[in-house]
Amino acid sequence: MNNFNLIKTTASARAGELITSHGVIPTPVFMPVGSQATVKTLTPDEITSLGARLILCNTYHLYLRPGVEVIKKLGGLHRFMDWDGAILTDSGGYQVFSLSALSKVTDEGVTFRSHIDGSSHFITPETAVALQEGLGSDIAMVLDEPLPSDAPVTQVRQAMERTHRWAERSLAVHKRADQQFFAIVQGGFSPELRRQSAEFLTALDFPGYALGGLSLGEPKELTWQTARHTLQYLPQDKPRYLMGVGSPEDVVEAVGLGIDMMDCVLPTRVARNGALFTRKGRVNIDNAAFREMDARIEDGCDCYTCAHFSAAYVSHLFRAQELLAYRLATIHNLRFMARLMADIRKAIFNNSFESFKKDFLSSYQTTDEGVRLVQKQKWIKARKPEID
Amino acid sequence: MNNFNLIKTTASARAGELITSHGVIPTPVFMPVGSQATVKTLTPDEITSLGARLILCNTYHLYLRPGVEVIKKLGGLHRFMDWDGAILTDSGGYQVFSLSALSKVTDEGVTFRSHIDGSSHFITPETAVALQEGLGSDIAMVLDEPLPSDAPVTQVRQAMERTHRWAERSLAVHKRADQQFFAIVQGGFSPELRRQSAEFLTALDFPGYALGGLSLGEPKELTWQTARHTLQYLPQDKPRYLMGVGSPEDVVEAVGLGIDMMDCVLPTRVARNGALFTRKGRVNIDNAAFREMDARIEDGCDCYTCAHFSAAYVSHLFRAQELLAYRLATIHNLRFMARLMADIRKAIFNNSFESFKKDFLSSYQTTDEGVRLVQKQKWIKARKPEID
Repeated sequence: MNNFNLIKTTASARAGELITSHGVIPTPVFMPVGSQATVKTLTPDEITSLGARLILCNTYHLYLRPGVEVIKKLGGLHRFMDWDGAILTDSGGYQVFSLSALSKVTDEGVTFRSHIDGSSHFITPETAVALQEGLGSDIAMVLDEPLPSDAPVTQVRQAMERTHRWAERSLAVHKRADQQFFAIVQGGFSPELRRQSAEFLTALDFPGYALGGLSLGEPKELTWQTARHTLQYLPQDKPRYLMGVGSPEDVVEAVGLGIDMMDCVLPTRVARNGALFTRKGRVNIDNAAFREMDARIEDGCDCYTCAHFSAAYVSHLFRAQELLAYRLATIHNLRFMARLMADIRKAIFNNSFESFKKDFLSSYQTTDEGVRLVQKQKWIKARKPEID
Repeated sequence: MNNFNLIKTTASARAGELITSHGVIPTPVFMPVGSQATVKTLTPDEITSLGARLILCNTYHLYLRPGVEVIKKLGGLHRFMDWDGAILTDSGGYQVFSLSALSKVTDEGVTFRSHIDGSSHFITPETAVALQEGLGSDIAMVLDEPLPSDAPVTQVRQAMERTHRWAERSLAVHKRADQQFFAIVQGGFSPELRRQSAEFLTALDFPGYALGGLSLGEPKELTWQTARHTLQYLPQDKPRYLMGVGSPEDVVEAVGLGIDMMDCVLPTRVARNGALFTRKGRVNIDNAAFREMDARIEDGCDCYTCAHFSAAYVSHLFRAQELLAYRLATIHNLRFMARLMADIRKAIFNNSFESFKKDFLSSYQTTDEGVRLVQKQKWIKARKPEID
């Protein structure tokens, strides 16, 4: 099955379409995150109305609660959450390595403790496939072994080689014809290892490739450099997915490198903290300027929030800690991302992506909070994790 | 202006219509509570789609945050919260006496401290009118002096007489022609004082009357006895509003006595704690029975939640503490209340209210949580209050 059509390239940026069992998704695409079978605060109808048709759910979370068997019994993940769009599930690897108390990684698999109740679990590459086939996502990911950005190169090599063996084993057991199965390129920040990883996995002919182990706290320039380097070894006719990106500015950068798919909790998480996206940059609704502002949060925004409520009202809801606040802010930020992706795609078709990117990045002000949020996601976690 | 048409009575139960500046409201009516200019978790569109066209907002909360001047500047409360239905505002009296640290009541007014920042405020009956005229609600309430249910009768008499003087002063300054202004009958649990209060206020010819000082923790039988007794002294052609009721079972009882309007945070507050209404009684979504239940929460329910999601999914969202859980539960309970009121009204028109009431109360199981919730709302508060 052909799962991807590359329609247009301009410089390195690409526009295409990803063909899934639940619809054709225009790329480049940003996937909202619905960790626990819900994009926090939103109904499926709202996600659709925001312009999103592909979301990401976390296998790790759903495996622990309510359990994949429960979801299977209820007709699979789409029916469980009443979502008729497409779903990508991750393998659970990232959460196993970052959220849980990790006991042991061997060639066989990973033993870890649940962050919910401390219970012990063992996941193998084969289990990760079975779980995702059970959930019935449209796109599944191989179990990989990601590492912190400061891991020594010998450890990075070992983890990469294990990831490769796991990819082969996963491919051998993956059966669902209605589910695409993507590999994850590892290799840390070593150009040589990244090349090896990309070439090894490309030879296995997966229908898509993700760049793993990035956006985990390393300097941004290193992210882009590593991504740019790796992408040259990946096939042009397959979708390329940069995991864990992004912020509006990072999404624009990533598309410029030739990325087709991205996901990140950032737009929804910062929304719940009152940080709202505008084309001029991120603003905080707590700011006194919004308190009596009788105008929408962003001039020209067509989201439900901006169409119905003044910035003053949203500001009031945040100050009063009303639950509606988190929902209205989530709607605004996800609609911003959908509009941004549509504009990016248009610019690629018009051969004007480079000037779009330059204009966007020069007017979009990044803030300290952006930096702080990335730091919060750093590898070593001492505190109770935020799970979305 | 005629603000109320009594259309049908059967035994004591009444069906009619309340004519407001924002639409005609069929009675008996249950008003969802939107304390801080939001019915918690819902958009105005959703409130409408649930079948509610009259909600209650709290003057006390809006006075403290964002401030009535801010709301006026933004075009009034309807525009501020984008609600085109009708709004009843309370006078703030109940919150002043229950939520805040109360400094002093004199004939002039009430001095109190904000529960938010401890700042000192002074409200008079005239201020309460001005605040509600500033908000622009469709129905405003006089400032009254409610008392705990165990207050000695001499104190109850003093408070009642003060409430009467305040009603006269309020009426003298109330100006908005597009806003109805209701009096509040006090008098505690003394039949004689209740009669006096009802007769005194009736003589002032308000367009509607509320029963105050009930549902504050006294035994239920005493509530109904006092309400029944008081209602006989109120005019038939004016709407009668029982403040702070109800639960489904209390709403049915109150209608049976001849009440036309009610409000309570109960349906929305218990929803956020996972307690869901069904015709068989209140169920808790935490119950293991729901964990894998591939059916709607209530068979035959037409709410958005039941139309789209299994009980298992809603149960999952609660266990995972997902924000969508609180919204879906709120939708279910408020739709239950709207359907209940529609069925009650139909039964009144069909002369079958008494048998409806009997059937409903025999099949609807009340629970301990119901009792606990009422107790939580008891007068003397030692802890940080829940404001909705």
